[in-house]
Amino acid sequence: MQRRQAHLPPFFVMGGANLLAAAGDRRGISGEIETVSTPQEAAEVFDHALPVIGSLDCEYAPGRPGRGSAETALASLESATGMAMLGEVGGLVTGPVAKSHLAEVGFRFPGQTEFVASACGIDPAAAVMMLAGPSLKTVPVTVHCALSDVPGLLTEELIVRRCQIVAMALSRDFGVANPRLAVAGLNPHAGENGRFGGEEQAVIIPAIEKLRVGGIDISGPHPADGMFTDRARATYDAAICMYHDQALIPLKTLDFDAGVNVTLGLPIIRTSPDHGTAFAIAGTGTADAGATIAAIRMAGECAARRANRA
Amino acid sequence: MQRRQAHLPPFFVMGGANLLAAAGDRRGISGEIETVSTPQEAAEVFDHALPVIGSLDCEYAPGRPGRGSAETALASLESATGMAMLGEVGGLVTGPVAKSHLAEVGFRFPGQTEFVASACGIDPAAAVMMLAGPSLKTVPVTVHCALSDVPGLLTEELIVRRCQIVAMALSRDFGVANPRLAVAGLNPHAGENGRFGGEEQAVIIPAIEKLRVGGIDISGPHPADGMFTDRARATYDAAICMYHDQALIPLKTLDFDAGVNVTLGLPIIRTSPDHGTAFAIAGTGTADAGATIAAIRMAGECAARRANRA
Repeated sequence: MQRRQAHLPPFFVMGGANLLAAAGDRRGISGEIETVSTPQEAAEVFDHALPVIGSLDCEYAPGRPGRGSAETALASLESATGMAMLGEVGGLVTGPVAKSHLAEVGFRFPGQTEFVASACGIDPAAAVMMLAGPSLKTVPVTVHCALSDVPGLLTEELIVRRCQIVAMALSRDFGVANPRLAVAGLNPHAGENGRFGGEEQAVIIPAIEKLRVGGIDISGPHPADGMFTDRARATYDAAICMYHDQALIPLKTLDFDAGVNVTLGLPIIRTSPDHGTAFAIAGTGTADAGATIAAIRMAGECAARRANRA
Repeated sequence: MQRRQAHLPPFFVMGGANLLAAAGDRRGISGEIETVSTPQEAAEVFDHALPVIGSLDCEYAPGRPGRGSAETALASLESATGMAMLGEVGGLVTGPVAKSHLAEVGFRFPGQTEFVASACGIDPAAAVMMLAGPSLKTVPVTVHCALSDVPGLLTEELIVRRCQIVAMALSRDFGVANPRLAVAGLNPHAGENGRFGGEEQAVIIPAIEKLRVGGIDISGPHPADGMFTDRARATYDAAICMYHDQALIPLKTLDFDAGVNVTLGLPIIRTSPDHGTAFAIAGTGTADAGATIAAIRMAGECAARRANRA
């Protein structure tokens, strides 16, 4: 069974039993789907069936998102987050969603990360997005904003907070005893001592010094363009980047189709494949499940590490 | 002989015969160095010796740049550029230089590219830097400036001019009959229709439309993070990037030690290895000559294509 070959821990799907059956039929996949009531029962049937919890469902209409599928997705997210918060499951894996459709059924968050943080009682601005692939882990300090807003958003405090959460999470959830962080500069050549932009001197270097004093193994600011070679990557456990594309370009260039988005700084474990809904190929059987499989595996590994420490 | 195995065209070094001999001795390289007077003579001796033209020279002091070495480097650059301008050689390959030391001996340009453009009678702002590796060619529209200055520097006219020069050069010097350009957005997800920043709508899309009307095969603006996967790279010949690191991160991540910096928009061919002086390892015998070899090979290939068209 593919799930066992991929070394996946037992997991279940929150709702959508009919949807999954219809999608399986379309592709000629014969695997059994079994609706169960509790995570315990899910683990028991996992060896021979894909367990589904709950009666949430909607019409199978691949590539045609609508009110019904949005309502199902939202209810599924809410239920799964609740179970993770209550400790009934080890972690939460979310799939890609169509944000505009979710908004139409009353979802008032910019994305699932903000919803999950808020449900956990955490300020969404304190949740940290880490992108993790087989070759690289990167963390963008600023994320979904115009590039022109990045210099103004970067503060010493923000960088310090992000790095502290990353170091803590690498140690607690990723088994890295003494995490090494490498921080990118904002400007070309990391500014060449202020020749191109002053953010390194004003903000990034003071943040690095504060973190070093706090006992974190941290280097930088490094010229971003040299940070992602094989040799450079061997010197750190996570690259702290100043903006979205600085973190995402190397990650997707090296690990496309295998990148996992992990939300750090939450009381629960939450992962997600690092791609969108791809409605254009929905139902065609051509989607690559690699990132989803990696997201499930990573959530399981992080959960096992937390359980071992507890 | 290594030079023949690497499929290098005949080339010569401008000055430094004693320097080269001392460096060869240090490494136990026994190859012959022969001082000649003309490019024609250089081609004749190339099979058995490394030809050097001219009597320029200085003391061999690896990793210790000074006035003498700066004067030699500058005179060598001036002579070689002059020969290229006169058509006595097919192209010019420059090595890395220590800009601060050159400035001390009267060099008044920010870098060699600006010097060469100026010597060719071209406005240095019109010279276009292309980074070319085995996997990828990228062109940053803006280059050595603070990231915060990038949005203000991007204009429709600048993007149009850069792309026209790139398309012309790919066709004339790189043998790409109908070059396909892919343009990156400035903002995350290429701005998501103005959600994160307005430069795509205001500047980049109008530039692309103007270029398309002008007959150039061009696509974009693409989210930059998805442009450098194997699949994406197969769809274009050069990626037009909005700023330094957007172009250099993927290039160095994929092609480190093999990236060549090509100056487009000049009447002469000029290439250079895409790395710095690395004074820290000078004389240790550990430097990787890959990018320099690639720069010489690329200059030779471009020169052969121009000669065939002439």
